[in-house]
Amino acid sequence: MKKLRRSARLVDMTQHLLARPHKLIPLTFFAEQYGAAKSSISEDLSIIKELFESEGVGLLRTVAGAAGGVKYIPLTNIEDARRGMERLCRTLESSGRLLPGGYLYMADLLGDPEVLTEIGKVFATVFAESEADYVMTVETKGIPLAYATAYYLNIPVVIVRRYSKVTDGSVVSINYVSGSSKRIQTMSLARRSLPENSKVLIVDDFMKAGGTARGMMDLLEEFKAEVVGVGVFMETANVEERLVDDYVSLLRVTEVDVRDKEIRLELGNYFKNKE
Amino acid sequence: MKKLRRSARLVDMTQHLLARPHKLIPLTFFAEQYGAAKSSISEDLSIIKELFESEGVGLLRTVAGAAGGVKYIPLTNIEDARRGMERLCRTLESSGRLLPGGYLYMADLLGDPEVLTEIGKVFATVFAESEADYVMTVETKGIPLAYATAYYLNIPVVIVRRYSKVTDGSVVSINYVSGSSKRIQTMSLARRSLPENSKVLIVDDFMKAGGTARGMMDLLEEFKAEVVGVGVFMETANVEERLVDDYVSLLRVTEVDVRDKEIRLELGNYFKNKE
Repeated sequence: MKKLRRSARLVDMTQHLLARPHKLIPLTFFAEQYGAAKSSISEDLSIIKELFESEGVGLLRTVAGAAGGVKYIPLTNIEDARRGMERLCRTLESSGRLLPGGYLYMADLLGDPEVLTEIGKVFATVFAESEADYVMTVETKGIPLAYATAYYLNIPVVIVRRYSKVTDGSVVSINYVSGSSKRIQTMSLARRSLPENSKVLIVDDFMKAGGTARGMMDLLEEFKAEVVGVGVFMETANVEERLVDDYVSLLRVTEVDVRDKEIRLELGNYFKNKE
Repeated sequence: MKKLRRSARLVDMTQHLLARPHKLIPLTFFAEQYGAAKSSISEDLSIIKELFESEGVGLLRTVAGAAGGVKYIPLTNIEDARRGMERLCRTLESSGRLLPGGYLYMADLLGDPEVLTEIGKVFATVFAESEADYVMTVETKGIPLAYATAYYLNIPVVIVRRYSKVTDGSVVSINYVSGSSKRIQTMSLARRSLPENSKVLIVDDFMKAGGTARGMMDLLEEFKAEVVGVGVFMETANVEERLVDDYVSLLRVTEVDVRDKEIRLELGNYFKNKE
């Protein structure tokens, strides 16, 4: 037990909650930790709660009863999310980012922890109530986004292999057809990396026709898993036939002019649905 | 300007600092933000500083002068680090983790955000004064660790490709010899992903003879970059000739008995050097 003054207790409770998103912490834990009355802890929590909400940090949800406690739920409010993703649109449209082959250079953004945590927190907001047990992605570019999302949901990540060898014992593999290139490819996941009947949130950086996401969904059937959500950072507009119906996108590429090396982006369907 | 009561201000300053590791924040920022005197802000900071240090959150470093301010430096104290890594040793030694081919199953641990942030913070402690501009790793398994480290150092990650295609414009590739298998392999990095003369911290999950780390160091020469540190989560003991001299390991595999499916681990050289 550490006897702290009120002010120090507030600092400690704040850092403790922030480090444990989506985790229920019994009030008795704090009360015993600081040798304080539960009523004082409740007062402290209401100060933290109010500040977290007004500053767009997230919610503190109180669960009543004997098994109750308090839970920090990271949430980005819709205006902050919109402003952040608009900013990324404008950055990505800036010159020199459209590469030969029509690829968009965004490794610098997806390598920047500040941008990643911003995107991850938006995904964690979208899927805050999904009750996902795992975030799943496929190597390589989706991995950082999957972790940033998983951090704020406080659940583990499973990585489907497309290129590298799976060295984790027995493996389930499926063939899938990349929706845009129509090539047959293979993806694999170690049997032991995902228990049966798990609820899984799929996160990826980019979706064109959705062949990769569809492949992950087919793979998940082999694990008797339930897909509780699909989140993609960027989708392309004007796709003839999409292989996934239900997904959330944060950005959308509307125009790619390879000759003039120009690209146009707008906000994805997450924001359209909120209008 | 948001006029907050002292208690709410402490909560807000705490969350603001925690979200911005290694970033200098001028005292005037807080003073203007809250419409408070600099002397009050200083008092608040000393409360936060004391708590961060006593609870093992990290340091608040004050930089004096006109361009001064305060910086949160995430640090795990050596006892907490030792306890955490000892716990991981024991978990990894538990039965059923040694797979055919002598591979150690640790995807579940390296997929768990709590474990990752714990390891990432230890690396960020080891290399807190390295002045690294970038964390570099090679796909696939090192990526989550690199991001966890980069998060606490607040610097970007660059990912060297070994399997997947680099679609980011012109590329620098090198051949390297995997130290243990003696096979020639290729690794590649997009030219634009790393400015010349950068200081780079290499992070990877596993090191045997060090061929992969050596390859990254050779690749960095092509970018005129300076390697300011090499951190590996796990190394193997009893290597005949190591290709990298100067590195920090957190865990070390001392024995692998494939027949009896037993594996033994101990703490890595980071802790040996601290004894």
